[in-house]
Amino acid sequence: MQVSKRISEISYSPIRKLSPLADEAKRRGVKVYHLNIGQPDIRTPECGLESLRNIGRTVLEYSPSDGFLSLRKRLSDYYSGYGLSYSPDEIIVTTGASEALMFLFLTCLDYGDEIITVEPTYANYLTFAAEAGVRVVPVHTDISDGFALPRPEAFERLVTSRTRAILICSPNNPSGCLYTRDELRGLADIVRRHGLYLFSDEVYREFVYDGAEYVSSGHLGEISGNTVIVDSFSKRFSECGTRVGCIASRNREVLSGMMKLCQARLSPPLLGQLVAEASFDAGRDYIGNVISEYVARRNVLVSGLRNIPGVVVPEPKGAFYVMAELPVDDAEKFCAWCLSDFDCNGETVMMAPGAGFYVTPGLGKRQVRMAYVLNAEALGRAVEVLSQALSSYPGKSDIVSFQ
Amino acid sequence: MQVSKRISEISYSPIRKLSPLADEAKRRGVKVYHLNIGQPDIRTPECGLESLRNIGRTVLEYSPSDGFLSLRKRLSDYYSGYGLSYSPDEIIVTTGASEALMFLFLTCLDYGDEIITVEPTYANYLTFAAEAGVRVVPVHTDISDGFALPRPEAFERLVTSRTRAILICSPNNPSGCLYTRDELRGLADIVRRHGLYLFSDEVYREFVYDGAEYVSSGHLGEISGNTVIVDSFSKRFSECGTRVGCIASRNREVLSGMMKLCQARLSPPLLGQLVAEASFDAGRDYIGNVISEYVARRNVLVSGLRNIPGVVVPEPKGAFYVMAELPVDDAEKFCAWCLSDFDCNGETVMMAPGAGFYVTPGLGKRQVRMAYVLNAEALGRAVEVLSQALSSYPGKSDIVSFQ
Repeated sequence: MQVSKRISEISYSPIRKLSPLADEAKRRGVKVYHLNIGQPDIRTPECGLESLRNIGRTVLEYSPSDGFLSLRKRLSDYYSGYGLSYSPDEIIVTTGASEALMFLFLTCLDYGDEIITVEPTYANYLTFAAEAGVRVVPVHTDISDGFALPRPEAFERLVTSRTRAILICSPNNPSGCLYTRDELRGLADIVRRHGLYLFSDEVYREFVYDGAEYVSSGHLGEISGNTVIVDSFSKRFSECGTRVGCIASRNREVLSGMMKLCQARLSPPLLGQLVAEASFDAGRDYIGNVISEYVARRNVLVSGLRNIPGVVVPEPKGAFYVMAELPVDDAEKFCAWCLSDFDCNGETVMMAPGAGFYVTPGLGKRQVRMAYVLNAEALGRAVEVLSQALSSYPGKSDIVSFQ
Repeated sequence: MQVSKRISEISYSPIRKLSPLADEAKRRGVKVYHLNIGQPDIRTPECGLESLRNIGRTVLEYSPSDGFLSLRKRLSDYYSGYGLSYSPDEIIVTTGASEALMFLFLTCLDYGDEIITVEPTYANYLTFAAEAGVRVVPVHTDISDGFALPRPEAFERLVTSRTRAILICSPNNPSGCLYTRDELRGLADIVRRHGLYLFSDEVYREFVYDGAEYVSSGHLGEISGNTVIVDSFSKRFSECGTRVGCIASRNREVLSGMMKLCQARLSPPLLGQLVAEASFDAGRDYIGNVISEYVARRNVLVSGLRNIPGVVVPEPKGAFYVMAELPVDDAEKFCAWCLSDFDCNGETVMMAPGAGFYVTPGLGKRQVRMAYVLNAEALGRAVEVLSQALSSYPGKSDIVSFQ
């Protein structure tokens, strides 16, 4: 009796190894600044919470397998505000973007098929791909140009007879990079010419800074039949725990195929849908305030990191993560050391080692991902602690190589 | 651009074809008694709803990937009450039993592996198996002996080098059959000798009638390392929409492997977990009242059906479904006809055609599954309507064959 090969081949989350060290540090009385996870501290919209406090239902029953029509109508209206045209029946509500991605892979790809995505990448894509028996083929993006989307040729070079889809995420987790209209147009050309799906993870759609232009894959009209948008309420309304997301697509075969999986799992979460629908009432003011807060946090984090000798960090234009290169021999060792062997006046930092975000072995070894989900004051202090940790760390490296 | 082969091979839910007909009947003003779905009308425990009304949280954040420890402790205590010993770290909270089953298949079986289960079966098992690339091998259970668990030899005959697991459900959906201690002991012997997993879907654990003994697979001590219990709050507390379930197992490799999938999807639903934990406070009185209600409903339905000439229906000892054989040429046609061409004083019935619950083509053609989730008065009326429909149906069959 053994577990399956596919499970054996999935790596544990990079954080998993560090969590016991963080727990142990806390037991020693050390305060840990958590830069490792994307759990915002921002309040959920009051109108979302009110929908629970005023719940009138007496039976918490299944919702429709594709989600409440009223919620899909709100989503359709919301997309209109971004110049995206998806009718309610072109939207399927899912249990977070996680389920949306997993179901999409199962719906569009068979065992042994290939999907191209950039690295560093959202590590959980790799698990969803493993679940579906799909091979992830990485296109390298580099810290030296802020992890910009590579030129179309870099994707096209990797297309084989098994390639079925390209998967992108903009604004990007983990890099914070925002893809431009020209970059996306180049990609659209490849998608169209090779008849591929384009899966576009847009869960950070609102989190775009410095007046940069947000371009959705849904704006690429010439490939509207190829494109599937993956979305989530988690970050937008700081309601990660409600587990509500969706896909939006013009492709009727994909919608109809994915419904088979949705029907088998019966229903997305009822309560999360109530909160999600009500949260739309929070309006643009809520989002505007959240964005201002994140910009302030980003500025504190990035300027603080740039003052530390040997640290390289691009300025992210979106989402709430940075990938930084540190002057250390091995970021995984360094992150563990920060928790097990270091503190600065009783404080330390927890970061996500970069290697876990790369498909290619050996890459990202000196990188870490930091989420700026703490308030600006705590972030400022966390950067000071990190700076001290880098000074004291015995495995320093003077040579920072752009990988 | 095509959807995947695995998706093409999944059948649509048997209900899906009938739903437009039901909608059309309602538009004509016909009242439809829904015997087709397992959505109880029973009220969710008030203490569960109160946990929402009194929610103190201001950020609806991720829960731990394996669920809140407090909920796992309550589950551990709850299992103790059934003579089942599972510590909180032998329990993983999932997004309903649906996710639990899908993750279990992915964790324990590889592409091309086989799982043995009885037919008629819960139709969604087939979709979860298709998602995992797993072949479902059916053992036939027969209406003539109330769909009792077959003798061990019937399972053993089907074991091949690719067989990895046996999946059972007791009390059974769709048949309502409750498996006895002797039957389960026979199965345990096979499981042990062939080194298989035993997946035991026990979401109807409470729904046991007439003083019958409830035996869990977790009571089979000699195979405790092989056994994984699949569970859900949906039916127990009439909170299907909260999407909270769990697995419980002593097998550390399975728990640890499945956690990789749980971490990738981040978190089970936060709000559902709050309701689930609070619902335990409803205590045995709540469940006791629910059971009395279901027994009354079952009695109305079964005695009513047995008064209709040509209808064969075993008395279910658990869950809230019956599989009945009808004197018709084709139950799928009959179910459609009831919605499209028949009414009795402006009323009709919707049932789930039996064939969708069988793996073997051609079986269950004259059977339907009915859920007794309506109140006794409505059920009594539904049986009268069904009786009239059978009298009027042009595709009657005088010969009832036990399949």
